[in-house]
Amino acid sequence: MDFRRKLQAVTGGKPGLCIGLDPVLERLPEHIREEATPFLVFNREIIEHTHDITSAYKPNIAFYEAAGVEGWSQLERTIREIPGECLVIVDAKRGDIGSTAVAYASALFDGLNSDAVTVSPYLGGDSIEPFLQRADKGAYILTLTTNPGGSDLQELVCDGEKLYRHVIKMVSRLNRLGNAGLVVGATKPDLWGDILELAEDLPLLIPGIGAQGGNIEALKTALRDYNAPALVNASRSIIYASQGKDFGRAAREAALRLRDQLQT
Amino acid sequence: MDFRRKLQAVTGGKPGLCIGLDPVLERLPEHIREEATPFLVFNREIIEHTHDITSAYKPNIAFYEAAGVEGWSQLERTIREIPGECLVIVDAKRGDIGSTAVAYASALFDGLNSDAVTVSPYLGGDSIEPFLQRADKGAYILTLTTNPGGSDLQELVCDGEKLYRHVIKMVSRLNRLGNAGLVVGATKPDLWGDILELAEDLPLLIPGIGAQGGNIEALKTALRDYNAPALVNASRSIIYASQGKDFGRAAREAALRLRDQLQT
Repeated sequence: MDFRRKLQAVTGGKPGLCIGLDPVLERLPEHIREEATPFLVFNREIIEHTHDITSAYKPNIAFYEAAGVEGWSQLERTIREIPGECLVIVDAKRGDIGSTAVAYASALFDGLNSDAVTVSPYLGGDSIEPFLQRADKGAYILTLTTNPGGSDLQELVCDGEKLYRHVIKMVSRLNRLGNAGLVVGATKPDLWGDILELAEDLPLLIPGIGAQGGNIEALKTALRDYNAPALVNASRSIIYASQGKDFGRAAREAALRLRDQLQT
Repeated sequence: MDFRRKLQAVTGGKPGLCIGLDPVLERLPEHIREEATPFLVFNREIIEHTHDITSAYKPNIAFYEAAGVEGWSQLERTIREIPGECLVIVDAKRGDIGSTAVAYASALFDGLNSDAVTVSPYLGGDSIEPFLQRADKGAYILTLTTNPGGSDLQELVCDGEKLYRHVIKMVSRLNRLGNAGLVVGATKPDLWGDILELAEDLPLLIPGIGAQGGNIEALKTALRDYNAPALVNASRSIIYASQGKDFGRAAREAALRLRDQLQT
C-alpha cells in the first residue's frame, strides 16, 4: 500500500498518536532489567497494551545501537512484534552521500522492515532521494527540532528566509511519490503558522509533546485546518509512566489520555 | 591519550592517509562473497596489507547496518582487528537531541571502541556536545560535503555568510577540549582558502579524493600552511583496486601511491 494511504488508514483524518520506543536500561522496571533481552521484553509489553490505541511506533535506533549487536537484534525483534495495523517509523536521522544513503535505505526499509524513517537534510536533496524511491515507504525530513540548539542553524536567515523554510521547499520538490514528510517539533508554536502554510500537503511527524513540554492545545489549533496526516509522538511520558510491574497498564492509560486530548 | 595527540602521532605533521572500509557484497572478490563473514574476511586482508602505511581507518556504518545484526557484528570484529597504531574513525554522521546523542556517543565510542566519529550539524550545538566530552575521543562535524546536493543548504548565504561558515564557527566554540574537527570535501578547491582561514586550528577529515575525483595537488597546496592535522580519506579507489585474489596487495599499492602523493 502507498505510504500516504497507510498514513491515512492509521490516522483517519485526526492527529494520530505515535509512541516512541526508546528504552534505557536504567529506566526500565527493575524486574525487566535482569532479562536476557530487556528491551524486547519491555517493548513487547508496551506494544501489547497500546497497539489498539496508537497509530504508529517510533523506535529511536540510538538506544538499540548503544547495546551493540544484542541491541540491534532486539530492535529487529521488537519491530516484528508490532502488528500490521500500526506503522513503524525508525527514527534514524540518517543523512549521507548517495551511494551510502542507498545502503541506509536498504538497512532501514528492508533489513528492519520499517514503513518510514527520519532523515537529516544537511547533505541536501540527493542524500534524501534514496529514501523516497518506493511509494510504500516514507521519509520524514528533520525540519524544526525541539532541542535548545535547534535554532543554531535551523533559524538562520538564508537568502531572505529561515533555513527550515529552505528544507521544506527542498522536501516539496523531492516529494514526487507523495511519501515525503517533515519532522516539526511541537515546542515552537509561534512558528507553526509559517511552517504549515509552506508545507501545504506534507505529512508531519511531531515530537516535543509530553516530557519535552510542547503545548497540546496550541498544536491542535494549528493543525485544525491542515489537511495532511499528522502523527504526534510521545516517548518518555508514556513508556515510563510507571516503573513498577504495572508499567504496561500505566503506559496504556498515559497513551489513552494523550490520544483523547489529541482527537477530541 | 588526548585525541589531538593521537592525531599528531599518526600523521606526524603531514596529511595522513585514511582508508574507508565500506564493503558492498557485490563488489567484493568472488571468493570472499561466499564466506560466512565476508565483510570481516575482506577487511582483515585490507588491514593486514595496509596498517603500516595508513594513519586511520574509517568504516562507514551504513554498509554494515545494511546487513543487520550480522553486519553490526562484523563491524565490531573489524574494529578489533585494527592495530593500536592506527586511528578508528566511525563514519556515522549522527545527529540527535541531547539525550539521544548521549546514547549514540556511548554506542560509537564505548560499544564500538572508536577513536572518533562523524557528526551531522543540523540539530545544532547541543546535539554535538555529547561527542566532545572526552578528551581522548574526537568528533568530525560535517561541514562541506562532496555530493552534488551538498550545496543545497551548505552554501546558502545566511546572515551574510555561507551556512558552512556558521558550522565552522559553531564547532570552534564547542572545541573546549581540542577534540573537534571538520569534514571538508576535496571536491571544491575554490572554497578551501575561505574554510582554512576560518577553521584556524581544527583538524580536518577530507573525503573526495580517489573515486570522487578531488584534485590532490590543489589539496596539498591549500594545506601547505595549515597547522592542524589532516586526514585524507579514500575508500573505493583503494579497497576495490582489484577484484581478484590479489585485492590485498592491490589495495596496498593503491594506498602507497596515494600516501606518497600526499606526503611528498
